[in-house]
Amino acid sequence: MNGAEALLRTLAANGVDVCFMNPGTSEMRFVAALEHVDDVRGMLCLFEGVCAGAADGYARISGKPAATLLHLGPGLANGLSNLHNARKARSPVVNIVGEHSTRHQQYDAPLSADIPAFARTVSGYVRVVAQAAEMGRAAAETIAAAIAPPGQVATLIVPADVSWSEAGGCGPLVERPQRPLPASQAIARAADLLKQEGTALLLGGTTVNDRALAAAGRLAARTGAAVFADRNTPRIAWGRGRFHPRIVPYFPEPALAALAGVRSLIVVESQAPVSFFGYPNTPSYLLPEGCPVFVLAQRSEDGTSALEALMEECGAARAAVPVDASEPLPAPTDGPLTLEAMGAALAASMPDSAILSDEMVSAGGAVIPYLAHAAPHDRMPVTGGSIGQGLPVALGAASAAPHRKVIALEADGSAMYTLQSLWTMARENLDVLVVIFANRRYEILEIEMRRVGVDILSEKLRDCIDIGRPCLDWLRLSEGMGVPATRAGDAAEFTAQLQAALRMHGPRLIEAVLS
Amino acid sequence: MNGAEALLRTLAANGVDVCFMNPGTSEMRFVAALEHVDDVRGMLCLFEGVCAGAADGYARISGKPAATLLHLGPGLANGLSNLHNARKARSPVVNIVGEHSTRHQQYDAPLSADIPAFARTVSGYVRVVAQAAEMGRAAAETIAAAIAPPGQVATLIVPADVSWSEAGGCGPLVERPQRPLPASQAIARAADLLKQEGTALLLGGTTVNDRALAAAGRLAARTGAAVFADRNTPRIAWGRGRFHPRIVPYFPEPALAALAGVRSLIVVESQAPVSFFGYPNTPSYLLPEGCPVFVLAQRSEDGTSALEALMEECGAARAAVPVDASEPLPAPTDGPLTLEAMGAALAASMPDSAILSDEMVSAGGAVIPYLAHAAPHDRMPVTGGSIGQGLPVALGAASAAPHRKVIALEADGSAMYTLQSLWTMARENLDVLVVIFANRRYEILEIEMRRVGVDILSEKLRDCIDIGRPCLDWLRLSEGMGVPATRAGDAAEFTAQLQAALRMHGPRLIEAVLS
Repeated sequence: MNGAEALLRTLAANGVDVCFMNPGTSEMRFVAALEHVDDVRGMLCLFEGVCAGAADGYARISGKPAATLLHLGPGLANGLSNLHNARKARSPVVNIVGEHSTRHQQYDAPLSADIPAFARTVSGYVRVVAQAAEMGRAAAETIAAAIAPPGQVATLIVPADVSWSEAGGCGPLVERPQRPLPASQAIARAADLLKQEGTALLLGGTTVNDRALAAAGRLAARTGAAVFADRNTPRIAWGRGRFHPRIVPYFPEPALAALAGVRSLIVVESQAPVSFFGYPNTPSYLLPEGCPVFVLAQRSEDGTSALEALMEECGAARAAVPVDASEPLPAPTDGPLTLEAMGAALAASMPDSAILSDEMVSAGGAVIPYLAHAAPHDRMPVTGGSIGQGLPVALGAASAAPHRKVIALEADGSAMYTLQSLWTMARENLDVLVVIFANRRYEILEIEMRRVGVDILSEKLRDCIDIGRPCLDWLRLSEGMGVPATRAGDAAEFTAQLQAALRMHGPRLIEAVLS
Repeated sequence: MNGAEALLRTLAANGVDVCFMNPGTSEMRFVAALEHVDDVRGMLCLFEGVCAGAADGYARISGKPAATLLHLGPGLANGLSNLHNARKARSPVVNIVGEHSTRHQQYDAPLSADIPAFARTVSGYVRVVAQAAEMGRAAAETIAAAIAPPGQVATLIVPADVSWSEAGGCGPLVERPQRPLPASQAIARAADLLKQEGTALLLGGTTVNDRALAAAGRLAARTGAAVFADRNTPRIAWGRGRFHPRIVPYFPEPALAALAGVRSLIVVESQAPVSFFGYPNTPSYLLPEGCPVFVLAQRSEDGTSALEALMEECGAARAAVPVDASEPLPAPTDGPLTLEAMGAALAASMPDSAILSDEMVSAGGAVIPYLAHAAPHDRMPVTGGSIGQGLPVALGAASAAPHRKVIALEADGSAMYTLQSLWTMARENLDVLVVIFANRRYEILEIEMRRVGVDILSEKLRDCIDIGRPCLDWLRLSEGMGVPATRAGDAAEFTAQLQAALRMHGPRLIEAVLS
């Protein structure tokens, strides 16, 4: 078999069975090899940022890596911002990048570029395959690097001649590593800390899940500890009947206020909290001065089991989990389409086990509190702050979990970065409902503009950041890529369209024009 | 004035008067400063790849740099593939990237990334401003780096606190460097070479312009030398009444055949030609073995004046320029919509001095020969081979030359990478006609698939690279971003829509559904 087939068979043997791809000439052998390897499904995307974000979303839901297939340096470049988000999510990604054939690299051809330099900006592991004979092993080692806890982007650069030359065979099976439990001393030390007043817990990484939340909730009930969670975790278990930690607020002032009473902090798969941006005369570091930080579990450790061990150690295993079991407000049947109305409609209508891809940006603050009363669901925030991940991550999540409804909650400005995602959703008939929060503004920038002291925006300034001139018509954009769409102008329309869309299978888009 | 205003005033003082921007929080002071500096026009783009390509197109037409304004590492990442094209075009670009405030950089905030590492992949010059007091000088030195011949991407990384702190004043005026003429010995040596049979000229860089082509044409007439031009030059002067060098073919086989008779090659702002990709059993280096290469002008030198000096030296100044003065074929009034029909309609209808942004990919081979008979125009190919530059480069060119008609000739697959360009065209009412060559295929990949030996594509393989399922509806996509659009299904419709669109001012799109 040639190198391309060896690569593909190594992926298949190791359970990497989806490849989000935007191939070019140097990747043609890989595409041709798909003919002979049924266990890997190639999903074509019309922009590489879609491939990268889809691989991230796939990993966040399935817990295992997808592959990407990107074309040379510029193809990789187009994927980098969503690979940045994947890096911050610690998502395992097998990032495959074609390169010119080895002999061709000495020439300054138009597409020549320093691919490893592009790759290193977002990858924990970068490997260039030197010859076809090492293709199988290189592929296996790249998979191993991707899944090494806590997970990372591992980039495999494959020259065209490595793909077309005889490779011998496919690579070995990779052992799936377990995340280690922290040492028992760490559990004991954390239990001691929880005896002191003002000790709080901060959950991050993979620990905002059902099991970890139940343990943290029991610890809170038993010890009185406050429980916080990072905003930018890859996946947050939320909804009715679950314990809800307090998400660290976005702006530094409310975050400082929220954390002001903390005398000592136990962090689980996380670090001491810092603000998203730095501002003049405001600290970036959010803990009170001198507050000690104790790491219960590193990001590569099993924070969930550590929380359960801590729960046992504190005698909290039989405590009742403090949950808010209240039913959602009824979905609105009239009135203007406000964020609150959308939150209420979503909470009342979402099916059980939905997956939310959250790129609401400025709308999130008003909507997320309503979701606490929705049916249990998983929400995937933007981990690395780079907008343009919401639609691709939804696409990847839907590929990983075909029997769960995926809902992408998208600000209109953010959705524009990777709107090509809609086409792949249509092509693969993925069960994704996209809700566009059409405020027709970069509202977060207007807020930030006020924070820099510009209270009243002049017409010239407002125009600089006004995405409403011309208006984006999301019905046309969506239908232009094959996804049926409707537009809602008031709360009753939104509720009706939402409930209708949730009853159907397959991609749909609702443009919610905010009042 | 604060650092942001010092930066903006330094740009304005040095004639950098357009900024293609997609700002975020860390760039808000720069946006706020636009209020006070009327000489810089901020143009909002909804994706950073649009900003980067627009700056490239602006430079190719105006000969001077535009600025970009990008948001942190991921914002820069989204611009990298078109900055790669700008790098290969040697376009001067003042690439401004916001960074976290200096104190904030020690924390691993979500948007933290190694911005210089992203920047170095495409930039000849990278500078991080350490404090506000050096802002003016840093901006001036970045402009100087950008315009140093032959031109390059110069990246200026500006931490948020540098923008908000007192900067003193704006930076100095930058001298505009002249490209030096090659030494007279080089001219004499080239003249000697032209006395030998089989000596050919290869034009690249900035030398495929009117003056250089006239000189090269006279040299060809006087000495019998063959004249070639690089495919991937930033700007090619073409059309009726001009001398047409032979463009080096794309695939290595015809390129090798075209260059087979060359005994010695004089290169002007270029290098020995190589194929676009490497293939098995086919050389990448396209000159006959042992063929000597003489560099008449380096890329940083004035190749046009060198060609004129060579023309004088060879006594060719009075030779007639060999031009094809034939009129274009009439625009077709019936029949199927073939590439040939589109070429004929374009050639017959294009106004004088049009600017073509050429991202036709597989369609180019059939269309470009027709354009030789069109009114004189400039054509801008994809310099770095990274598709997704056509629409942004057209946008930038239209900003630089508001009185010239810009026509973007776009393959449907390529247009999808940066379709957000349409929105800025609508917002700025730019005089751009976009023609989508809708073959609903990645045809170039089908050709490459045949080249790797897969002659008959199975249904599975064809599906892997089939962008026609679902069909992209360019009318909806275009109108969704505010650009009026029509669809042509036969030659008569295309001709009528083309001629109507060329009579109007402002952005238009024609989806040409190929037969």
